[in-house]
Amino acid sequence: MSSSSSADSRRQFLRQFGLTAAATAVAGPTVALATSPSTMQYDDQKKLGFAIVGLGKFAQQQMMPAFKECKHARITALVSGSPDKARKLAREYGVEEKNIYSYDNFDSIKDNPAVDVVYIVLPPGLHAEYTIRAAKAGKHVLCEKPMANSVADCQKMIEACEKAGKKLMIAYRAQFEPFNLDAIARIKKGELGKLRQITADHGRSVKPTEEPAEAWRVQKKLAGGGSLMDIGIYSLNATRYLTGEEPVEVTAQEFSDKSDPRFKEVEDTIHFTLRFPSGVLASCTSSYSIQEVKRFRAFGDKAWLDLDPATDYYEHHMTIGDKDGKRQPKIKEGNQFAAELDHMAECVLQNKTPKTPGEEGLKDIRLVMAIYEAARTGKRVKV
Amino acid sequence: MSSSSSADSRRQFLRQFGLTAAATAVAGPTVALATSPSTMQYDDQKKLGFAIVGLGKFAQQQMMPAFKECKHARITALVSGSPDKARKLAREYGVEEKNIYSYDNFDSIKDNPAVDVVYIVLPPGLHAEYTIRAAKAGKHVLCEKPMANSVADCQKMIEACEKAGKKLMIAYRAQFEPFNLDAIARIKKGELGKLRQITADHGRSVKPTEEPAEAWRVQKKLAGGGSLMDIGIYSLNATRYLTGEEPVEVTAQEFSDKSDPRFKEVEDTIHFTLRFPSGVLASCTSSYSIQEVKRFRAFGDKAWLDLDPATDYYEHHMTIGDKDGKRQPKIKEGNQFAAELDHMAECVLQNKTPKTPGEEGLKDIRLVMAIYEAARTGKRVKV
Repeated sequence: MSSSSSADSRRQFLRQFGLTAAATAVAGPTVALATSPSTMQYDDQKKLGFAIVGLGKFAQQQMMPAFKECKHARITALVSGSPDKARKLAREYGVEEKNIYSYDNFDSIKDNPAVDVVYIVLPPGLHAEYTIRAAKAGKHVLCEKPMANSVADCQKMIEACEKAGKKLMIAYRAQFEPFNLDAIARIKKGELGKLRQITADHGRSVKPTEEPAEAWRVQKKLAGGGSLMDIGIYSLNATRYLTGEEPVEVTAQEFSDKSDPRFKEVEDTIHFTLRFPSGVLASCTSSYSIQEVKRFRAFGDKAWLDLDPATDYYEHHMTIGDKDGKRQPKIKEGNQFAAELDHMAECVLQNKTPKTPGEEGLKDIRLVMAIYEAARTGKRVKV
Repeated sequence: MSSSSSADSRRQFLRQFGLTAAATAVAGPTVALATSPSTMQYDDQKKLGFAIVGLGKFAQQQMMPAFKECKHARITALVSGSPDKARKLAREYGVEEKNIYSYDNFDSIKDNPAVDVVYIVLPPGLHAEYTIRAAKAGKHVLCEKPMANSVADCQKMIEACEKAGKKLMIAYRAQFEPFNLDAIARIKKGELGKLRQITADHGRSVKPTEEPAEAWRVQKKLAGGGSLMDIGIYSLNATRYLTGEEPVEVTAQEFSDKSDPRFKEVEDTIHFTLRFPSGVLASCTSSYSIQEVKRFRAFGDKAWLDLDPATDYYEHHMTIGDKDGKRQPKIKEGNQFAAELDHMAECVLQNKTPKTPGEEGLKDIRLVMAIYEAARTGKRVKV
């Protein structure tokens, strides 16, 4: 993998991962990139320094801008296979050019005191490798969801961070989002009565041919799976944080049109149910071939609470219905990304366990695997 | 069963059914009731005459008033175990007192030329008996959903009407409701693209102790089952009319708190999935212990269509979402009950097979039984 190629398109970037991920893991540091002057925008040097690993659309459009609202976190390094893109973003975010890394020289980040936390925003198939490399480099790790492609990889990530004495947090942004937090609080204090059922639906239309940056989502090696790993996990995680319980049984049905080239390696639509110890039944859907949906509804015996959208980036909407009708509580929007990043920073600064540690990611991946097993066998799977 | 008791409360009415249904089937006609003057409001004698069997809340509040909007149907007889209630309603609807029947003398309706159609609005456990008695009396039958407590009973009902050369229609009102018809039409003409999934949720809070008229809903013998038979069937039927397909496989999960006296005999919450030949997966929920929900959403690859409420009596609401956003099509509300009643009358007048014949009811009951089997065994059930 050449870090000096100027023709590396996003597509090549991804193909390189798919084909050379193993090779890059043993590659040593390469020449530091370019030297244009830094335009540092963060003067609060007490903020923890984050290295962003992977500068895709999500990182650029959602997460990186959120640092501007952080109290305890700032971007101090960038890790990318696209030097031009990295340099451009470094200028925008005031990152010194010496703090730009490639995937080859990433391990040398261990010598950079400006980096406290490594935030991994790569396709899931690369999470284990980069988390372990970051931990070995003595850095705390914030890693995007889904945590990894397998339970074994999740365990290795947890072990690597434990061994290094570093924090590991999985970036479950919805657990830092005000409408979701408000929903959890209302359920907890009994506003819906006794919780009885949940429905949660997540869907999107993936278009890898129209949008090459989406290509990894339909590659098993990089994505770990299809819609379930990518977006169904929002439904799954929501059922757990809304109930405050761990499910005991899962079932699942899958449909993927195998004549559609998108679904040669990964699943399209998967519907799954979760049974919780209290008796709550959750019915979730996940699909890659429908228009966007990101919603859930929690039904108590006294009222129901709907978030639609529930897990968007902004502009959430809550409705509560009971025997007297419907109402839309006023809830203040907040930057879930900034809250999440600040939480990670606080956990490092105050030596606390993150709200969504590696174990939280592992729980979901165990359930994801159980859901895949249920879909494959047609049987209820105890978990 | 005494038709002259003035103390027969709704609760007694129900208890009598549960306890004496078999006995009443062989009882002969009794003395005709009261003689206060008729206040006939319908002057169009060309309308077909309907006998309403069972004068509960649904009949009184929803269905009977709809006759006022019918072109081809009018109420000409009432069948009830409550003579006082029947007399009151007879006056209100201009039914001659001689056309009031009890459950004992119901069979003598065969001699009444004013009755063309018998509309059975009794608890499901009584549908087979009264359909067969009506067919034997030479009357066409409109019967409420769910059709009956068993596949065998459905078959007997179909056979009885066939043998008598009479029409049998199951009152699937949603299939006559403008928003539902509009949704079906939009899906059929491809407005959503290729249909991929459906979610449908129906719930209500049954309160048999607070509302004695609800007591039959939690009695297996009268209701045939719990929420699935009563309201889950709206989700079930909707998946069939929205896809225009018959499912090939079902799965189900049930939760019923057996310490709750309501759920000693029938199920509370049951979630089920249906797999259709085209690949559409439908996820449905049904519950007796949540606040009212009557909604579905159909997801195509180009757009989704939401009805919430979908299967209410009035005030439906449609939203269509696609990549460009959401919109609420303007659709004219219409009286689904009047449309349904007129359709039944037209089928008789024009010797047509109803849109929702006995076979339609039978298909749902077969599926209901498969769903119960799937819930019991935890296995996928081929249908």
